[in-house]
Amino acid sequence: MSRAWILERRPQGMPQAGDFALKPWPLAPIEDGQIRVRNLWLSVDPYMRGRMNDVKSYAAPYALGEPMHGGAIGEVVESRAEGFAPGDLVQHMDGWRDEAVVAAAAAQKLPALGVPPQAFLGQFGMPGLTAYAGLLHVAEAKPGETVFVSAAAGAVGSTVVQIAKAKGMAVIGSAGGAEKCAWVKSLGADHVIDYKAGPVLRALHEAAPDGIDVYFDNVGADQLDAALATARLGARFAICGMIDIYNHAEPTQLRYIARVIAARIRITGFLVTDHFGRLPDFYRDMAGMAAAGQLQREETVVDGLEAMPDAFLGLFSGANTGKMLVRL
Amino acid sequence: MSRAWILERRPQGMPQAGDFALKPWPLAPIEDGQIRVRNLWLSVDPYMRGRMNDVKSYAAPYALGEPMHGGAIGEVVESRAEGFAPGDLVQHMDGWRDEAVVAAAAAQKLPALGVPPQAFLGQFGMPGLTAYAGLLHVAEAKPGETVFVSAAAGAVGSTVVQIAKAKGMAVIGSAGGAEKCAWVKSLGADHVIDYKAGPVLRALHEAAPDGIDVYFDNVGADQLDAALATARLGARFAICGMIDIYNHAEPTQLRYIARVIAARIRITGFLVTDHFGRLPDFYRDMAGMAAAGQLQREETVVDGLEAMPDAFLGLFSGANTGKMLVRL
Repeated sequence: MSRAWILERRPQGMPQAGDFALKPWPLAPIEDGQIRVRNLWLSVDPYMRGRMNDVKSYAAPYALGEPMHGGAIGEVVESRAEGFAPGDLVQHMDGWRDEAVVAAAAAQKLPALGVPPQAFLGQFGMPGLTAYAGLLHVAEAKPGETVFVSAAAGAVGSTVVQIAKAKGMAVIGSAGGAEKCAWVKSLGADHVIDYKAGPVLRALHEAAPDGIDVYFDNVGADQLDAALATARLGARFAICGMIDIYNHAEPTQLRYIARVIAARIRITGFLVTDHFGRLPDFYRDMAGMAAAGQLQREETVVDGLEAMPDAFLGLFSGANTGKMLVRL
Repeated sequence: MSRAWILERRPQGMPQAGDFALKPWPLAPIEDGQIRVRNLWLSVDPYMRGRMNDVKSYAAPYALGEPMHGGAIGEVVESRAEGFAPGDLVQHMDGWRDEAVVAAAAAQKLPALGVPPQAFLGQFGMPGLTAYAGLLHVAEAKPGETVFVSAAAGAVGSTVVQIAKAKGMAVIGSAGGAEKCAWVKSLGADHVIDYKAGPVLRALHEAAPDGIDVYFDNVGADQLDAALATARLGARFAICGMIDIYNHAEPTQLRYIARVIAARIRITGFLVTDHFGRLPDFYRDMAGMAAAGQLQREETVVDGLEAMPDAFLGLFSGANTGKMLVRL
């Protein structure tokens, strides 16, 4: 009997164990155009927190009493769809469960890029495309510019660091704790800021005495404010996420917001879904960087479907270095 | 003996009377390439508050013990510069004084657009160009879109309202008090929000149930937050000023900043100085709107050089409807 994580009630603030329940979830027999997939890897991502609220946003809210959704990599075990055969590895969005019946149109066979399957949930998947499109297209970062990226030890941030270095930019990354900072430095970052060790603003002033040209925001709050304070003339901010505020009702406090005027800062929010058309470029460019040895990949792996809520909550306490994954 | 307003000490928070002093300020004899101007109209503008601080910003700080600067309209009384003759009306930046010796290169003869001289400190001057460039070029507002503009009874805001209406946009303006709101409505605004009468966010939701496409920000703080809350997909914010925070050390509190992501909002700070190249288009377009009866102009006039600090401080208490001017 297949099982799935059900949203039992909508979390208030930080989600609690009782907000979710792992329950048997029987699957219907597959119909024409469908495949049955045994999931191997499940993704947990910060944006899922928003889907747990009953608020219309860019992604539909999860329904109460129904399985949650998210990125998944699995093996086709039964197919009534042309082009899919048992044994094929596919990517789809019916995560948070061990098995799924999905429309073939909603599944993609993994491209042959010489990386392991779970990489398509991270550096070669949505987090990677988010990094790529946000840095190069939304923020229009150019060689020679100085890029600040927050949550630089995360799935998106660590890819931003590496793409930026591969493209000839100076990079400052922030992360929490000495171990993560050391890893971000090992990725090639010119400076690393440990946000747990002191005020980010002071550290950013020291790391970039002439200011920053680009800020890739995964965090919001104090780190956004520090970026506003240190932005150079014509700086561009790509706002990808604000993990610091997803579980909080308090307003964000910005001391330096008026600098958008003097420094003519451009702040742009974006979603990876607007950039799916860049996937071919992204795969080609990333495969080239990987072949040139410019990409390292780190995963924090949690084993077993039972542990999935812990993996999800770990995103908000900084439990992951690189992509957080659940292995079934 | 000519006189000028001297910056005596740098204001802390809201400027106080003792921060400025009106003193005799003798002028040197004019040299080749210079003109002597008797000022007729002086401008007070919110951006001057920033120049009173000792902080490097887009405009150099005013020097302590020296006359302050700002927009002025005057009559040439002596000229050693080609193309300038006594009696010419000119615009220059040596305001805050009754007479000035200026380089001819730093003065412009007023173009013949059929408007009174002081209009070149307001709707046909920097405030007007600010409205024009911010609305049409920075925010890229399009016919049929819904525009929200704060401080809509001010020099910039009232011009935004009228240009937006002339260009076929729906306009919501905010202002303080029934009298100003009635005036903004008379300019053609579809809805007017009295920010003193209740929460701006609720009023904006009611005025724009389907949300706003453009926000022209003169205020910051709560009005910026309300704009974030009501922004439609792909909304553009032109950040022109944040008068609510110029005199305050407290951080800006934003409850809805994370909506930049879901709604893919683009927030761009700008200065009119980046758009001087648009002056010919601006003059031509504005003259056309004026000829079509689409532009009304209101001035709040304070008489006498002695009253200039009061006029300046009045900007922060909402004492002006339309452009605040000092008449000599």
